[in-house]
Amino acid sequence: MKTLIDNGLIMSAEGKLTAGGIIMEGGTITRAGSGVSRETEDYDEHIDGKGRWFLPGFVNTHGHAGSTLLRGAGEELPLRQWLEQVMWPNEQKLDRDMVSAAQDLALAEMLRSGTTAFLDMYHLGIHDLAEKTSASGMRAVLGRGMIGFGGEAGWQERLDASADFIDSWHEAAEGRIRTAVMPHAPYTCPPAFMEKAASLAVEKGVLFHTHCAETRQECRDHRREHGLHPVDHLHQLGIFQLDVLLAHAVHITEAHMQILADTGTGVSHNPSSNAKLGSGTAPIPEMMKAGVRTALGTDSTASNNTLDMVEEMRLAALIHKGRLEDPEALPAADVFRMATSGGSELLGFHQTGVIQAGMEADFIAVNPHSLHLTPNLDRAAAHTAYSLKSSDVEDVWVQGRRLMKNKELVTLDEERIRFNADKQAAKLL
Amino acid sequence: MKTLIDNGLIMSAEGKLTAGGIIMEGGTITRAGSGVSRETEDYDEHIDGKGRWFLPGFVNTHGHAGSTLLRGAGEELPLRQWLEQVMWPNEQKLDRDMVSAAQDLALAEMLRSGTTAFLDMYHLGIHDLAEKTSASGMRAVLGRGMIGFGGEAGWQERLDASADFIDSWHEAAEGRIRTAVMPHAPYTCPPAFMEKAASLAVEKGVLFHTHCAETRQECRDHRREHGLHPVDHLHQLGIFQLDVLLAHAVHITEAHMQILADTGTGVSHNPSSNAKLGSGTAPIPEMMKAGVRTALGTDSTASNNTLDMVEEMRLAALIHKGRLEDPEALPAADVFRMATSGGSELLGFHQTGVIQAGMEADFIAVNPHSLHLTPNLDRAAAHTAYSLKSSDVEDVWVQGRRLMKNKELVTLDEERIRFNADKQAAKLL
Repeated sequence: MKTLIDNGLIMSAEGKLTAGGIIMEGGTITRAGSGVSRETEDYDEHIDGKGRWFLPGFVNTHGHAGSTLLRGAGEELPLRQWLEQVMWPNEQKLDRDMVSAAQDLALAEMLRSGTTAFLDMYHLGIHDLAEKTSASGMRAVLGRGMIGFGGEAGWQERLDASADFIDSWHEAAEGRIRTAVMPHAPYTCPPAFMEKAASLAVEKGVLFHTHCAETRQECRDHRREHGLHPVDHLHQLGIFQLDVLLAHAVHITEAHMQILADTGTGVSHNPSSNAKLGSGTAPIPEMMKAGVRTALGTDSTASNNTLDMVEEMRLAALIHKGRLEDPEALPAADVFRMATSGGSELLGFHQTGVIQAGMEADFIAVNPHSLHLTPNLDRAAAHTAYSLKSSDVEDVWVQGRRLMKNKELVTLDEERIRFNADKQAAKLL
Repeated sequence: MKTLIDNGLIMSAEGKLTAGGIIMEGGTITRAGSGVSRETEDYDEHIDGKGRWFLPGFVNTHGHAGSTLLRGAGEELPLRQWLEQVMWPNEQKLDRDMVSAAQDLALAEMLRSGTTAFLDMYHLGIHDLAEKTSASGMRAVLGRGMIGFGGEAGWQERLDASADFIDSWHEAAEGRIRTAVMPHAPYTCPPAFMEKAASLAVEKGVLFHTHCAETRQECRDHRREHGLHPVDHLHQLGIFQLDVLLAHAVHITEAHMQILADTGTGVSHNPSSNAKLGSGTAPIPEMMKAGVRTALGTDSTASNNTLDMVEEMRLAALIHKGRLEDPEALPAADVFRMATSGGSELLGFHQTGVIQAGMEADFIAVNPHSLHLTPNLDRAAAHTAYSLKSSDVEDVWVQGRRLMKNKELVTLDEERIRFNADKQAAKLL
């Protein structure tokens, strides 16, 4: 089927709008931009773009869907205390129904706010999440979160579970699902376990994803225990020779940035979560100057408290300018790139992230006819970073399939999902 | 007329929800909270609260409605350069129609996002803004922004204009309009002019509002020129003996905080604007510890780029935790208070800011049945600070009058306002 969208404004990779349209066929964009019209093209389906802005879908490069029911629970505690008193005891109580309800809620919230692809690390319910991702039509990199406690027997069990998951799901769902090896963090995974995880990633040819250098305390403790900063340690273990995506990297030096840049290691910047947990702010403009590959992520609702990439863009666009007292730090166009093509590249979805011929059709339609996006003129990049709201997103396509239509989710039952989430959350502490 | 709202959830000053309703009569709340029902009360009008959260309206304590058309224009420049190359040349071009269109846009945007009261400083169109505020039903502190260039003749002209405005509008529109004396800033107003402005505020018995210590450069320059930090200078001039509200106060020391606390001087915290312009982040938790009275503001769309107090709450709740690496810094409940009763107090609207018997009926209804506010349980304070979106606001009442009904603005013509704003903005640089 050949679908033609006309009468829209198509956003380029640089954040500029061009009046025109999009033609897609078999999940792929065959034409985009000016000159797309019903008069000169044949088509099977026509969609009136109605002056909407068409943007690449947002790519959320770090999260934990399974813990979404913990939104707003146990607020404003230090990271360790929050993990030990809120997250871990509550996660002990999570059963399959609770995790399933949390995953549904996360997928629906992400889709509604314009996210087309995401990464998820969790230790529970990952096969369920893969099924749900497949059924929802979304795109994701999924993996089994692994903590290195419990000795070698425990390790092997988790590595086997990871391997099994990768074998079952890598490049499944028409290529919309990719997998990764996901040891939780250097502070929860001993070096020998990290090495085993790395071997598995090499064997399977998949991404290696871990939290790293999230808090000052973590780096201090790691130095005390291992004599090295976590980034130096992972480097020494040879792990950055792999395809690696680190979440956070808040407390790193220029020397670490150089290591990450030289090894092509990616960083998922999660400014809301890092702020809310009192971890700090990752030096993203500095990393970009050093040549580090960067993207954006929300982390989980337990530390954000939303899965809204529009909020994440706004915060990323603001927080570094304030921190560095430099209004030119992290310009709007860079933030937009981080939230779209920067994320696609780091997740290995190289065929998405930009609206242009030859790319798969992952994009969203935004209604710019709102007070907060007025005046409208030619201010799209600034409006997208600073003024856009996720409630402006009206339509979402992934691989050419329309997953949200005029603000109605097509593949997910929103009412049932909310009801079920509230019901399951009642079982928490 | 006696209006009864039942079946809602009413938020207390501490951010806790109570199942119940609100009764109002003649613009005043006569009962609020549990036990309000159709069975036990007589009433003229009944509104079904439908499980909505009823919050006090947001109070935006610093802005410049007249420059709203500059949203997204000339992004990411240092403050001085931004003022000199974008703001001032564009403001030279502003005619009455442009300012009027900008004011309409600002009022509509604020009202739609749940703001019931605001402060505005501008040098153009203030009588028009007072007329519009009166007609819209909103509540505001308005004043003529005064820059101290052009010698004594210029000073007197501006002071006279201020005095005339105060005489015309103070406590007008059923008390919904208050006025203030508003010299722009210590760096644009010489000390002798500041003193004259202070005398006028004393004479009229109104608030004194000025920008102060917004950038590091401003403080450095002020020391060089006057031998004193701007806060010390205003203190030396005796200005803090008045009822004073400072905007920004980003670059101040503990000694300055003590001065502000001792004199009861208020601070309007504008975290988005301060971040976006690269000014920094005002030390608000430190000020609160010192006893300084604080509230929130958006500043203008030229430096934010929205007038959305929900965004401002979220940023305030996040940015200090990150800056201080302290997840307990500026808890959600404090942010909520700053956005509501904290603002009311500093603007002199002591009869608003809390939903309780005896207060005037300025409040909003929020639809909590959304993915991003699920699970819903008893997490209202956290949800309000971190997860709420202004698109959740459905209804707004000011002084008992319903100004937004099911997301439709009642007193403002939104479509005409957007059309006119785009039309007038085309005349800008």
